Amino acid sequence: MNPLTSPLLTDLYQLTMLEAYLREGMEEKAVFEFYIRNLPKNRGFLVAAGLESVLSYLEGLAFTDEEIAWLASTDRFSKRLLDYLRSLRFMGDVYAMPEGTIFFENEPLIRVEAPIALAQLVETRIINFLHFETSIASKAARCVIAAGEKVILVDFGLRRAHGAEAGILAARASCIAGFAGSATVIAGCLYGIPLFGTMAHSYIEAHGEEENAFIAYGRANPGNVTLLIDTYDTIRGAHRAADAALALRKEGIATRAVRIDSGDILGLSKEVRKVLDGKGLEDVHIFVSGNIDEYAIRDLLSQGAPIDGFGVGTKLDTSEDAPYLECAYKLMEYAGKPRMKKSRGKATMPGRKQVFRRFDNGVMSGDTLTVENDPQEGVPLIGKVMEKGVRLSPASSLKDIAAYTKEQYKTLPESLKNLSMDPSCPVRISSILLRLQEETAAAIS
Amino acid sequence: MNPLTSPLLTDLYQLTMLEAYLREGMEEKAVFEFYIRNLPKNRGFLVAAGLESVLSYLEGLAFTDEEIAWLASTDRFSKRLLDYLRSLRFMGDVYAMPEGTIFFENEPLIRVEAPIALAQLVETRIINFLHFETSIASKAARCVIAAGEKVILVDFGLRRAHGAEAGILAARASCIAGFAGSATVIAGCLYGIPLFGTMAHSYIEAHGEEENAFIAYGRANPGNVTLLIDTYDTIRGAHRAADAALALRKEGIATRAVRIDSGDILGLSKEVRKVLDGKGLEDVHIFVSGNIDEYAIRDLLSQGAPIDGFGVGTKLDTSEDAPYLECAYKLMEYAGKPRMKKSRGKATMPGRKQVFRRFDNGVMSGDTLTVENDPQEGVPLIGKVMEKGVRLSPASSLKDIAAYTKEQYKTLPESLKNLSMDPSCPVRISSILLRLQEETAAAIS
Repeated sequence: MNPLTSPLLTDLYQLTMLEAYLREGMEEKAVFEFYIRNLPKNRGFLVAAGLESVLSYLEGLAFTDEEIAWLASTDRFSKRLLDYLRSLRFMGDVYAMPEGTIFFENEPLIRVEAPIALAQLVETRIINFLHFETSIASKAARCVIAAGEKVILVDFGLRRAHGAEAGILAARASCIAGFAGSATVIAGCLYGIPLFGTMAHSYIEAHGEEENAFIAYGRANPGNVTLLIDTYDTIRGAHRAADAALALRKEGIATRAVRIDSGDILGLSKEVRKVLDGKGLEDVHIFVSGNIDEYAIRDLLSQGAPIDGFGVGTKLDTSEDAPYLECAYKLMEYAGKPRMKKSRGKATMPGRKQVFRRFDNGVMSGDTLTVENDPQEGVPLIGKVMEKGVRLSPASSLKDIAAYTKEQYKTLPESLKNLSMDPSCPVRISSILLRLQEETAAAIS
Repeated sequence: MNPLTSPLLTDLYQLTMLEAYLREGMEEKAVFEFYIRNLPKNRGFLVAAGLESVLSYLEGLAFTDEEIAWLASTDRFSKRLLDYLRSLRFMGDVYAMPEGTIFFENEPLIRVEAPIALAQLVETRIINFLHFETSIASKAARCVIAAGEKVILVDFGLRRAHGAEAGILAARASCIAGFAGSATVIAGCLYGIPLFGTMAHSYIEAHGEEENAFIAYGRANPGNVTLLIDTYDTIRGAHRAADAALALRKEGIATRAVRIDSGDILGLSKEVRKVLDGKGLEDVHIFVSGNIDEYAIRDLLSQGAPIDGFGVGTKLDTSEDAPYLECAYKLMEYAGKPRMKKSRGKATMPGRKQVFRRFDNGVMSGDTLTVENDPQEGVPLIGKVMEKGVRLSPASSLKDIAAYTKEQYKTLPESLKNLSMDPSCPVRISSILLRLQEETAAAIS
């Protein structure tokens, strides 16, 4: 069993509801939508990510004999359910915004249309992918906007990501948002993400002397020399790195950068720059890591820190200031009738939806959320991506998605790029959708 | 390739450092320790978890031909390194605190002793496991302490966990800490964790009428009936659930509980209790979910909310108020000599360490952190668990670990159980360890 693709990656209640649906013969089409209820504090916008994971999961959805046997061994489920699961494949339709699309609260990222048992079973994993990948792409987008065009960003987060899959998906999501690459080796293997790496403090410590360690590292990795200078004393380390870089240069080995991982980064980066320049090493970059997020990037660069790149780790891969999003995958229609939930604070808007985005001189001026087939001013954001379980087009390359995301940033009004704003949602709900909500609510006794 | 067990789940710099170590012939024994630098805000203690994952990973560590071929295809690595990796197995020794042990800052959870290349390569995944599982076990422990003995807790977090592995490991870590079980089906399959589940709002919505939905669900799942009552109006839902429970009772089907997922939980739970009791359903429990964490559990129960169980989801599986820990895996000794890092705010304490815990009438009265082989008052917490790559004893059952954790809670002084305290670290550093740190620092030029 592969835990990452197993259909057992679901909640027990999905299976107990299936028992009931099958027993009752309820097999009409259900329409579910995934959306974010509210943007977290400080987030002016979100960046859609996770669709590729969802489509791969749906394409491969199948129970193995081993999984069916385990379900049977629990004595919880009927033979009817086990037989149903044994032959189950995802045969539904999916509509979605492309990955990299900027979006706001209440706007569906994805719509799933399938017989209710099927659309229900996949809920848990669909949320699991879209919630996390969108969280990380959105956090990473803020770092990219703070860094500007000239400073490169690299994902350093695997070690403190929440498990292996989080680290892998974070490498991909940050790449979508404009990161240059990741330190996570397996992300290079799985997604072709460019890999970056330096050295650890332990490497220096094991050598004892810094300069020897630098030179040995350069000789062993002549194509990729970044020297970590803060193990003992950062300025002394900078001098030794400079001397090592000059020695390596004589052997034909270029030093790409030095890395600072602790201390007063603003002051140290300026001093280190002077040390390097003073020895004719203007081409050696300064790379910074340690507790970095979009706020640190903004503050350091706005104060003139001469930093050429950042390793962004923990705070990116955990989306530290917003470790979760208020998201939901909700039933919007069943058997051709709109459905809704009226729970306090969690009421839904029924029906199949579309989002139209208006632009003013290339800058977005507002969205309209409405029902499908209600044309509004602007460009529709949601399109069909899967029909009867089959993708309508091959997966886009990461490079193409990242290029699309970059174009999306250009459409953002300045106000939404502010890193410390309270979100002011630019989404208007159409009158036809509001009326549908009222009517549906009124029909519920 | 299985991404969850792949040795490519590492940082690029581990491989580039290996290049240098191999080139230099540096193959002496390294000693690394994993510890938490500072406890996060509001955490009085942490609960060790993740050791089982680490030992399984180390036991299975091996590169496949496919992985070696991919590394070769990047043109980054020498034939020497690829040959080394091809035959690599973990042959080191591991010392650790048992899972479920309560611990504090600077205390090593694990010590790895192996040739430096090997001990270095495994750093990323070791941190990835210990950091996350300890975060979740510690968060879950707070929920368990807040809930007391009579209220059951269930992990509902998979959907908003950071990826699949996070959801799976969170189910296990919360079970260690005293949760009754999880909704995550695959965690039942992989770890034998008891599974719990109710129904979703979509199930009610698809039926339209609540009472029909309740009865159909009960008939389909006679052994496991919990009815969700807040889809439209919670009190009306409670009346309908009560009527359904009475109807089901006539068919020999017992209703275990009703679930409330939104609104003013304190007031609603009291009203719902009255509705149920008024119809002779004193044995039907009230189960609550939605935005639950240790603070909500404490506040609701201390105000007399008649709640029998909680589903704890997002805030548990993301450790929402402390989504990461300031942890490190650091070189403490190489080739028989103590090593240390002096970086500002991140200096390490060199040498192999042991922790002794003192008790006063069964309650812990303080820890001493010292070097190995320096007996102190109290009980040593760290023992050898793996020798030359082989475990010294089979994995403990989850039940046994949970029982051990429960005993650990009994040793906690009241002050450390407070959910909203600033951590006051009860760890004393021995004079012999302080002297070793001074001497090691002085020897670094």
